[in-house]
Amino acid sequence: MNPNRQFVREAALFMREHDRFLVLSHINPDGDATGSALGVVLMLEQLGKQYVVVNEGETPEKFAFLPRFDQLRNLRKQPLEEKFGAVIAVDCADESRMGDVRSLFDSGVRLLNIDHHPTNDGFGDVNLIRTDAAATAEILFDVAEELGVSFTEELALCIYTGLLTDTGGFRYSNTSPRVMEIAARLLSYGVKPGEVAERCLEEITFAHVKILRRALQTLELSHQNLIASITVSVDDFLETQAEREDAGGLVNYCRNIEGVEVGVSFVESEPGVVKVSMRARDRVDVSLVAKQMGGGGHAKAAGCTIRGSLSEVKQKVSLVLEEAVGVKSDE
Amino acid sequence: MNPNRQFVREAALFMREHDRFLVLSHINPDGDATGSALGVVLMLEQLGKQYVVVNEGETPEKFAFLPRFDQLRNLRKQPLEEKFGAVIAVDCADESRMGDVRSLFDSGVRLLNIDHHPTNDGFGDVNLIRTDAAATAEILFDVAEELGVSFTEELALCIYTGLLTDTGGFRYSNTSPRVMEIAARLLSYGVKPGEVAERCLEEITFAHVKILRRALQTLELSHQNLIASITVSVDDFLETQAEREDAGGLVNYCRNIEGVEVGVSFVESEPGVVKVSMRARDRVDVSLVAKQMGGGGHAKAAGCTIRGSLSEVKQKVSLVLEEAVGVKSDE
Repeated sequence: MNPNRQFVREAALFMREHDRFLVLSHINPDGDATGSALGVVLMLEQLGKQYVVVNEGETPEKFAFLPRFDQLRNLRKQPLEEKFGAVIAVDCADESRMGDVRSLFDSGVRLLNIDHHPTNDGFGDVNLIRTDAAATAEILFDVAEELGVSFTEELALCIYTGLLTDTGGFRYSNTSPRVMEIAARLLSYGVKPGEVAERCLEEITFAHVKILRRALQTLELSHQNLIASITVSVDDFLETQAEREDAGGLVNYCRNIEGVEVGVSFVESEPGVVKVSMRARDRVDVSLVAKQMGGGGHAKAAGCTIRGSLSEVKQKVSLVLEEAVGVKSDE
Repeated sequence: MNPNRQFVREAALFMREHDRFLVLSHINPDGDATGSALGVVLMLEQLGKQYVVVNEGETPEKFAFLPRFDQLRNLRKQPLEEKFGAVIAVDCADESRMGDVRSLFDSGVRLLNIDHHPTNDGFGDVNLIRTDAAATAEILFDVAEELGVSFTEELALCIYTGLLTDTGGFRYSNTSPRVMEIAARLLSYGVKPGEVAERCLEEITFAHVKILRRALQTLELSHQNLIASITVSVDDFLETQAEREDAGGLVNYCRNIEGVEVGVSFVESEPGVVKVSMRARDRVDVSLVAKQMGGGGHAKAAGCTIRGSLSEVKQKVSLVLEEAVGVKSDE
């Protein structure tokens, strides 16, 4: 038998042989973590099982369109006395990603670990880890088929949300033919692709608009227009009352400008601490650039955190990028 | 036989029985028009046929990544003396959409019309019109299968580009299971989804950034935050040296703000003429709103053009929207 199939069977067996489950995903949950956790919940319901679904902290309100979102318990705000003997952890690359939810484990706990991260060390008693999967939700599709549960529109929506968000709207290189085939199946079960994308990928806060319009004033091209950068200071946050997460995605405005090879955002998260995010098009491997400055990432998306004033950090990064693109900074 | 299959066969026969073709799409070509025209060209090459591929005007440079883009002739800049007896028109809803390219038709011309627009009146001698297709490229996929040509990475890229752009990145409601199934096949032939999305959907001009940062200064919420609007004046165009098309997509910033039901952009295209674009979330049918002001569109995307100063037009639209959302304007 295909070993993948064997692991899927063991996961299905785990869900059949226990009666009451703790279902969890990782701290700071994203669309795949939340969609997968709630997808598991819907499968357990169909199997007639009991469950509690928790996260150490809060799940972003933008996922409130997902079924059973109201069941998702924020452990910090709603502590639990109960201990659990059967746990299903989804999308957690290692134990620490589960956060304080581990305090709810019974001493003899049995844990099913379903994940797609290459760094997953198999911390479960039963491990279903497929590093070729674009999302944990992709693996859950197979679990649902193995269990023979019905692909209701709600279940399809949870799985689709995981696929959509972990592939960046079917744009990252992990968007495999298999991802698209599964998406086709999920659409046939009634998922509305526009509505999911609207909630997960398009919605912005008004605070984001406010920080964006200030940041765009700073957008500048340099290095013969090969580099575009954008800057957000601590004052910008104070004056717009925006949170740090409202400044997400600014670097994309830089990278998306025609002719630009590297986009860079400088976000002063606290006085004297600057988060540098870089996005590359074709010619530069920004993970190497980030590494030189003590950070890391992928060839097309990387970053680092540097101590110093905004102008010091910009100066430093500019010099490193000068070498990477082979063109002098224009200053 | 399935009538669809019959039409696909007739289109394939048309391509087999002639030797030299004029291939064209519509004026102001988009991703589906361009991807489909070049997809037809690649099929003709495989069949050993000769062709000239033209457009009345210029094809946007952002599609330069498509194979045979350099073969695309801009008729205005490169007039042609030759007349053609066999024409393949793709993505043209009616004859007028072909523009001046019609001047190249021989008196006894035979025309193959491949399109997906519901309003197509069947102006060809052979018509392959499938209004259930999300894109003309979706129909071409079937033509390629019928012809038995090889799905090279280049051909797959052309078809994928049409699918991606006409579904808004697999987000519009025309994103059917069939679209995703075909996309899965095309990815398996080597298409890189991220690169195509980057070229077709993400790339922006620096002029767009300049107009965006001015426009965002005008972004305001009204009608108890249910409506967000943004304004671009003729002066904004003059001072940023941006073209009209650089102001595209501004309305989405409004609609995407959490809690907003209708986003509106007011773009003064010339002094005293304002283009109003509206995007709705759930509660309002903006096609009805646009219709009241002499425009039209779809429930979630509509618009109209109104004569008057920016402030007059904004006042007028505000009142109509007041009724549509059932909430008084805050002014």
